[in-house]
Amino acid sequence: MQFSPSFQQLIDALRCLPTVGQKTAQRMALHLLERDRAGAGQLAEAIGEALEKLGHCRSCRVFTEGEICPICADSQRDDRLLCVVESPADWIAIESSGAYQGRYFLLLGRLSPLDGIGPDELKLDQLADRLDQPGIEEVILATSATIEGEATAGYVTELARARGLRVTRLAQGVPMGGELEYIDASTLSLALKGRREAES
Amino acid sequence: MQFSPSFQQLIDALRCLPTVGQKTAQRMALHLLERDRAGAGQLAEAIGEALEKLGHCRSCRVFTEGEICPICADSQRDDRLLCVVESPADWIAIESSGAYQGRYFLLLGRLSPLDGIGPDELKLDQLADRLDQPGIEEVILATSATIEGEATAGYVTELARARGLRVTRLAQGVPMGGELEYIDASTLSLALKGRREAES
Ligand SMILES: [Zn+2]
Ligand SMILES: [Zn+2]
Repeated sequence: MQFSPSFQQLIDALRCLPTVGQKTAQRMALHLLERDRAGAGQLAEAIGEALEKLGHCRSCRVFTEGEICPICADSQRDDRLLCVVESPADWIAIESSGAYQGRYFLLLGRLSPLDGIGPDELKLDQLADRLDQPGIEEVILATSATIEGEATAGYVTELARARGLRVTRLAQGVPMGGELEYIDASTLSLALKGRREAES
Repeated sequence: MQFSPSFQQLIDALRCLPTVGQKTAQRMALHLLERDRAGAGQLAEAIGEALEKLGHCRSCRVFTEGEICPICADSQRDDRLLCVVESPADWIAIESSGAYQGRYFLLLGRLSPLDGIGPDELKLDQLADRLDQPGIEEVILATSATIEGEATAGYVTELARARGLRVTRLAQGVPMGGELEYIDASTLSLALKGRREAES
């Protein structure tokens, strides 16, 4: 199949999107060119702007334009609660549930010694610094119910306990082996309400 | 859910892609920012370039950079056959089958009098001009097996017959009411080989 270079390039570029194969990329490319040129222009611009402007919040590591994200800057949020999640997708899942009003910290990964991912690779000294800041009373572990997630939770628990902080975990309701980002809001809401003390 | 402006803008922009809803757009935005910044940059550039460079081939109306597309410019293709399709997606479907070596003409729509889409709206005078050019012996109708597709086929048949050209249609194999772009290559291949004379 012989496409014009720019068209082929567009198809190839669209395949960088998750779950987008050759056929879907073709359909997307045609849609952008044929039916939604305005949308296509906005998409190109939005990607460029996001790449240029978005960095990680200095406090919680969420994507944000400035030094500090809107949630960390929001004085209405509860400073006593710090929810530790693995990824931005997990952060979105919890925040979308509407059941949580505290602060966050994003690990941006999981401990996985076999893959050479230790505390240094995840820059967990940033978490230690965050835990040293005054105001936090409870660390809520919202890591995945996977082996790596458990190992990560154990490490964070130690960091928090060493500072005399209460450590809780999301309640039953998160299925074993389940990825947090795919769980519906009401289940997450229940899991937050029923959170329990971490086992030592 | 409160995202940073640039991030929200990226999610909104991704929703212009077909079949991409809120959740998928979020996942795509995270993927671009977290896991594939290089791919994201290439995507933005590819969209911009495609919008800037791609117009319609003057002869067949396929997307192309120059005045004439690679297929129209290819002297190896059979000038005697002109395959008339509705959309670029249908063109891709036939060309991908590898079973056709002639020329194309894209209608870029279907006649639909009830929706106010007549020959003028589809600029079918361009098709008449194309049929007036020397060399064509057979017009292959590859329009959809829908009511509008049939009406369109009837109109093209008249144009072609008025010029003494043979008019054929894709053989049985294309299911009734089926959209051409979703049909597999081998079925299309058979349908091309078994094409028959159009009924008057
Ligand atoms: Zn923050
Ligand atoms: Zn052409």
